[in-house]
Amino acid sequence: MKIALDLMGSETPTKTFKQALQKQSKHFILLGSKAVLKHFPTFEHIVTKSVVKMGDAPKDVLRHKQDSSMAIGLDLVKEKKAVAFISCGNTGAIAALSNSKLGKLKPFSRLGLLAHIPTKKKPLAIIDVGANLYYDAKTLFEYGKLAARFQKYLFQLKKPKIALLNIGHEATKGKQEQQKAYQLFSKKNAYFTFVGNIEGQDVFEGTIDVLVTDGFSGNIFLKTAEGVANFLQSQYKFDLPSLAYGAIICGVNGLVIKCHGKSKTQDLLGAFEKAKHLSAIF
Amino acid sequence: MKIALDLMGSETPTKTFKQALQKQSKHFILLGSKAVLKHFPTFEHIVTKSVVKMGDAPKDVLRHKQDSSMAIGLDLVKEKKAVAFISCGNTGAIAALSNSKLGKLKPFSRLGLLAHIPTKKKPLAIIDVGANLYYDAKTLFEYGKLAARFQKYLFQLKKPKIALLNIGHEATKGKQEQQKAYQLFSKKNAYFTFVGNIEGQDVFEGTIDVLVTDGFSGNIFLKTAEGVANFLQSQYKFDLPSLAYGAIICGVNGLVIKCHGKSKTQDLLGAFEKAKHLSAIF
Repeated sequence: MKIALDLMGSETPTKTFKQALQKQSKHFILLGSKAVLKHFPTFEHIVTKSVVKMGDAPKDVLRHKQDSSMAIGLDLVKEKKAVAFISCGNTGAIAALSNSKLGKLKPFSRLGLLAHIPTKKKPLAIIDVGANLYYDAKTLFEYGKLAARFQKYLFQLKKPKIALLNIGHEATKGKQEQQKAYQLFSKKNAYFTFVGNIEGQDVFEGTIDVLVTDGFSGNIFLKTAEGVANFLQSQYKFDLPSLAYGAIICGVNGLVIKCHGKSKTQDLLGAFEKAKHLSAIF
Repeated sequence: MKIALDLMGSETPTKTFKQALQKQSKHFILLGSKAVLKHFPTFEHIVTKSVVKMGDAPKDVLRHKQDSSMAIGLDLVKEKKAVAFISCGNTGAIAALSNSKLGKLKPFSRLGLLAHIPTKKKPLAIIDVGANLYYDAKTLFEYGKLAARFQKYLFQLKKPKIALLNIGHEATKGKQEQQKAYQLFSKKNAYFTFVGNIEGQDVFEGTIDVLVTDGFSGNIFLKTAEGVANFLQSQYKFDLPSLAYGAIICGVNGLVIKCHGKSKTQDLLGAFEKAKHLSAIF
């Protein structure tokens, strides 16, 4: 069981990768430039040429960067030479490349980015945090089912509790997409329990397992949470828990984990654990 | 100079209104039911019949609740019998009634809900936090101009710094609406400085004066900030600053302030101060 790890295309320093990779060599295949790889002499590796940059448009990456560490790392998953691919790079590019190389996980038609956040009780899965900026009610419904599948496995749940991120509790609140998704989720099913709409101030109580939203709102939710946490930490001085290690690209045939662009050692270690744990279901 | 204050239609208890209104009687006209008003014997008041409930649809309120405390309070502003109206009630209903009774503030074509949030440096204005769920680039641009006008007055600024809430820094990030708004804001003008896109994790650094977004994202931003703050406060025990006292309904001919549905005494006192301070510009 090998995990492919992308060392390029992010603001995560080589030093951080080095710290996280201590004592882990046999499980990894590292991807990067010669200059970076020389810091990891004992690791299995592949020297790659181009680098996907944070500002690259996904369609340009698909066309012109098939020799990048990101593309080749995903090839390893496709060819079953690795059970998972982990990268701190460009989210849109990872999503597009994962979709193109690994294909959709049936019966889902969209992919979504799933992150875990701490709450007062247990970790909550939030989907989507940035894969799709445009969406309809069916996409939101699929996100719920996708995330429920992961939460069931990760936390041994029978019927995960799903809520829809919205601006009020009533079924009539939100945009048409939220109102229609509310109806779809409300139909009886065997896989999850829909508990209705939830607002941002209640999410952290820990009463739900899955929070469903669109990629724009979800990305803003996650980054705002990070901003507020850092703001309060700077004012009141406390040890902040790691917020967003290892978001999962859900809905493709393979395990792909996207880490924060500025990951810390503990974020990478969290992602490694997640990859080892989840690889069993792929 | 009188301020009309709505005592109905929210989860703010009468006790909280009572505490906030100590020593303030001569500046206020209170609106509410006979049962509530009997707790405020020394205040000028108007007994009102119907109550706008949190779940009421704005169009139903316009049609059937013109005898509510909310509608009659706004009539007082319209008739110049009050310089401001303050309510803790249904946001959509306040926006719709303000629009219908007070009319648009020229040259703006949309109204927006403006809230102030603390940052590491100075209070930041965020618009829109819930008035319009559907929007285009022009709406975002108008929001920026509206909020800049208030920030100029409140903080004696020459050219407020405006940023667009987005999921990345580059001009090509976000949905088409954000990309087009970026172009509109980038044209040179005398009223504000556009500093580009900003992400949620950077908002609280205090480097900007106005944060522009749509009503759905803005509402999620604000409520998420509240949720994270409460979560961390419950874990690490510190005195939390008040986040959202007195959002302003921007873009109508009159001063209307919407307080949190569950306001605390200090939230109401903050809104009273804001009303007194801002009444000079109307």
